[in-house]
Amino acid sequence: MKHLRPHFRLLMSSAAMALAVSAQAVPAQEKPADHGDDASAAYQPSMTTLGELNVEIPGRKPGDPVMTPDEYQNANTIYFERCAGCHGVLRKGATGKALTTDITREGGFDYLRDFITYGSPAGMPNWGTSGDMTEEEVDMMARYLLLDPAAPPEFGMPEMRASWKVMVPPEERPTEKMNDIAIDNLFSVTLRDAGQVALIDGASYEIKAVIDTGYAVHISRISASGRYLFVIGRDARVTMIDMFMDPPAPVAEIKVGTEARSVETSKFEGWEDKYAIAGSYWPPQYVIMDGNTLEPLKIKSTRGMIYDEQIFHPEPRVASILASHYKPEFIVNVKETGMILMVDYSDINNLAVTEIEAERFLHDGGLDSTGRYFLVAANARGKVAVVDTKEGKLAALLETGGQTPHPGRGANFVHPTYGPVWATSHLGDETVALIGTDPEGHPDQAWTVVQTLYSMGGGSLFVKTHPESEHLYVDAPLNPDAEISGSVAVFKIADMTEEEPEFVELPIVEWAGIAEGQPRVVQGEFNQEGNEIWFSVWNGADKESAIVVVDDKTLEMKHVIKDPRLITPTGKFNVFNTRSDVY
Amino acid sequence: MKHLRPHFRLLMSSAAMALAVSAQAVPAQEKPADHGDDASAAYQPSMTTLGELNVEIPGRKPGDPVMTPDEYQNANTIYFERCAGCHGVLRKGATGKALTTDITREGGFDYLRDFITYGSPAGMPNWGTSGDMTEEEVDMMARYLLLDPAAPPEFGMPEMRASWKVMVPPEERPTEKMNDIAIDNLFSVTLRDAGQVALIDGASYEIKAVIDTGYAVHISRISASGRYLFVIGRDARVTMIDMFMDPPAPVAEIKVGTEARSVETSKFEGWEDKYAIAGSYWPPQYVIMDGNTLEPLKIKSTRGMIYDEQIFHPEPRVASILASHYKPEFIVNVKETGMILMVDYSDINNLAVTEIEAERFLHDGGLDSTGRYFLVAANARGKVAVVDTKEGKLAALLETGGQTPHPGRGANFVHPTYGPVWATSHLGDETVALIGTDPEGHPDQAWTVVQTLYSMGGGSLFVKTHPESEHLYVDAPLNPDAEISGSVAVFKIADMTEEEPEFVELPIVEWAGIAEGQPRVVQGEFNQEGNEIWFSVWNGADKESAIVVVDDKTLEMKHVIKDPRLITPTGKFNVFNTRSDVY
Repeated sequence: MKHLRPHFRLLMSSAAMALAVSAQAVPAQEKPADHGDDASAAYQPSMTTLGELNVEIPGRKPGDPVMTPDEYQNANTIYFERCAGCHGVLRKGATGKALTTDITREGGFDYLRDFITYGSPAGMPNWGTSGDMTEEEVDMMARYLLLDPAAPPEFGMPEMRASWKVMVPPEERPTEKMNDIAIDNLFSVTLRDAGQVALIDGASYEIKAVIDTGYAVHISRISASGRYLFVIGRDARVTMIDMFMDPPAPVAEIKVGTEARSVETSKFEGWEDKYAIAGSYWPPQYVIMDGNTLEPLKIKSTRGMIYDEQIFHPEPRVASILASHYKPEFIVNVKETGMILMVDYSDINNLAVTEIEAERFLHDGGLDSTGRYFLVAANARGKVAVVDTKEGKLAALLETGGQTPHPGRGANFVHPTYGPVWATSHLGDETVALIGTDPEGHPDQAWTVVQTLYSMGGGSLFVKTHPESEHLYVDAPLNPDAEISGSVAVFKIADMTEEEPEFVELPIVEWAGIAEGQPRVVQGEFNQEGNEIWFSVWNGADKESAIVVVDDKTLEMKHVIKDPRLITPTGKFNVFNTRSDVY
Repeated sequence: MKHLRPHFRLLMSSAAMALAVSAQAVPAQEKPADHGDDASAAYQPSMTTLGELNVEIPGRKPGDPVMTPDEYQNANTIYFERCAGCHGVLRKGATGKALTTDITREGGFDYLRDFITYGSPAGMPNWGTSGDMTEEEVDMMARYLLLDPAAPPEFGMPEMRASWKVMVPPEERPTEKMNDIAIDNLFSVTLRDAGQVALIDGASYEIKAVIDTGYAVHISRISASGRYLFVIGRDARVTMIDMFMDPPAPVAEIKVGTEARSVETSKFEGWEDKYAIAGSYWPPQYVIMDGNTLEPLKIKSTRGMIYDEQIFHPEPRVASILASHYKPEFIVNVKETGMILMVDYSDINNLAVTEIEAERFLHDGGLDSTGRYFLVAANARGKVAVVDTKEGKLAALLETGGQTPHPGRGANFVHPTYGPVWATSHLGDETVALIGTDPEGHPDQAWTVVQTLYSMGGGSLFVKTHPESEHLYVDAPLNPDAEISGSVAVFKIADMTEEEPEFVELPIVEWAGIAEGQPRVVQGEFNQEGNEIWFSVWNGADKESAIVVVDDKTLEMKHVIKDPRLITPTGKFNVFNTRSDVY
């Protein structure tokens, strides 16, 4: 079954690549059934604002079209679902360009309409010609962008408490595990468009539970003890699942904002399971919650100065959060200001936060193999920042040499020549950067790119390996070439003594036996033992998806998980590997 | 000369008192000649905003008057000078009520016009009938308040750097003291409406220099070495004066925002003179600067959650700042959120800030006699928060029992019955609260009001004593009774064994021999030796003012400093006592 393809480099056109990148942030599948209500409610402009719209638009050019209150509300919802991920709620720009009215009015209505319709080589999707928006919708969005953005409402303690539900209070929960599931080998699998997670047994491949969650769960995190699973949807809904129940089921839930990406739980010795934390895109803030009930305890805004220019940014979004193993700290990565926050949770009424100046557009990252260093991508800057979590300081800031690094949590292994390294692939090209992480044993290589691998092509989201594995896996789900996006590249670590090691390409979609649609293969995740790696075969919401299990030793297909409930599977989080930061 | 008046309690009507309090924040004298340019430039609305004004005002009731762009700009300037101090730039309210448009439009134009004209018993000055505003101005302000507030522009690093001037670079400064002034006994005296400070010799009473500064210098602070004097105007202009030059002269200057109150300099061992810090009202932020040049290094926003409700506040103003003697930290007090920030300046690129939840409406405060505990008034809440600067935690939060405590830095002395105490008087009544500050020696009294003294009347701003003194001085400059506002009450510390000790009243204005106007006596300040206390006799800008020096032993007038240059003297800061936190 092994499908070998010679090593090659596909240098995509910048236009196609940029489109693929944008599509990641706002995929066409993103039409949640249960999502619209929350979002539109949060974004509902006040009648004052609406009243204004039909009369005079500030700064509007003579002849510029106006819009009705209904149109404004629809446009607001579309903007949130399609545009805000890249351009920001306040349109200050990030992955996408700024769309503030000084810019949009300069261009004017016709320009905007055409831009939205046809896209651009710089990365704007062709929303019109792709069929994702009707001609009327494009027209409406162009008019919408001529108006000043309506800042969505704040979401503070009153709103959080109103949304907070404890379905099963701690005293009513089981005192011991009531099911016969080997929890540490469970996989929590995001069913993206279904707004659910599936809990799949790592040994039997059996779906043990399908649990309603927020929309498009971004990540799953496991409490230090392994008992509680926390998931967060893009709609900022956090769900806490008790793995001791039979079957595992949600025990608490909260909404922490209107858009969010990150959740984590305290892991430092003596603080296990004590706190959870969630970071929001809107409002720009994070909240520390009781780890047993999700009761919101402490909200902290991230609004502040951009690290280098020291200009105030009104919307610095929380990109990713990781719990330190060295201190009672959460590591909170703030995208627009480029600040890495070391949030000391040992005394939340006297909250100590160390704000490390790193680099703008922080995205995601992970720990090195020792757990001491945290590596995080500043994706739009092509860099990786390294934080020494023991010292609470920036250890290094380096260029990956590739375009738009996207490590997920990255991959740690021992390179045959350079010793311990951490790897990231790239959204923008086919390279994989291997970065030395051993300042004591390999000081010359520490925090430098020791080797660049060339994988199948651009559009990669995740790399993966495991301490027991001899391989490095690289996906490319956003590559426009269906053969590439349907496959996974595998490098043999032992071969990395060569300057440009070859890779093997596994035809995952072919193995899944899915003919309909153009599914993307995304995010390898090892089982607890480290002898199998699972890949999601992510198809359209109305089409068959699957998870393909690969034998790490033979690189052969071992099993295909298919089930009508497996709708748009994307991220998968093995309980043991996630809670122990094994990646 | 001793003028004795029997102990009495003047319980002012709430209306009169509130008026006096408001008058303090926005005194009638406040018509700076050199101030308008800066303020109006900062507040100039964009043409977009102006364009909007003549057409349709959002939420405007039919028939509500509109305003021209010129009027809008004038109103903005008046609002900044007269109203923002109490109501906040964004009109969220603090000492004054909130004036957001949901409230002002509810009332409507006529209501607002009358309110501004006649004032209210709750503390609103009668701007119209007092003659401070013309009928046209009142009309304009009422219309202005029906419009949404125009948030002033941000003031980040580019603006600060553009404003930053080094008149004498460090390498061109003298290497030793070039004058024959006994610097440690100099007084830096705010000449409020002149936008200057006078440096007055503590022995000869001679004015050694008059230096142009920002408008209405709020405080003077001395670097740990005693060489540099830092002053900050309400217009957020910081001036750094080299005391080694002959005469002492400004060597650097910067504007840190559009409205500010606080400046301080690093005092921890090993960090003397290294950094300066200034806190702003607008934008709500603080900036750490090079202590040698005022070069702005690190700006930090204070926008965030109110400590108790955890609702986002867009304008949490920095009220006061103090340098810790126990750690390399600045103690930054944020008014609207009620947070006390311990800002660790030992690594400003990895800035660690501990945010202590205290109480809303933090204002000013000072250290206890040991320097370990910082006591700060939450004035509108009638409370004092106590921070243990060694542990970085809130030690206590207590009610003073009085209305609107206003301690300045407070006064430390050893009470004959209760041991070490710290005192604060009150804006809102005649009481002086004595708070125990010795948790080890007097644990039962620590952080409780051990005794309440009854002084001349409400409207007090400052209390004062000195380790060498046996007296506690209490002013009442905002009392509407000219005899009270022109006098100072003196309590003998030894008499405090009595339940309600008597006080002696010193007729300072009478001693000054000023007949014209109704000068207020404000802010006692001891000389270095601690045997004299100086009081400002603060008259109108066009009238004679003075400083009266009182012999602390005899309580007799020792000297009156008069000079045509002494225009509106208010705060006085003895170099030694200020840099050593002796108060």
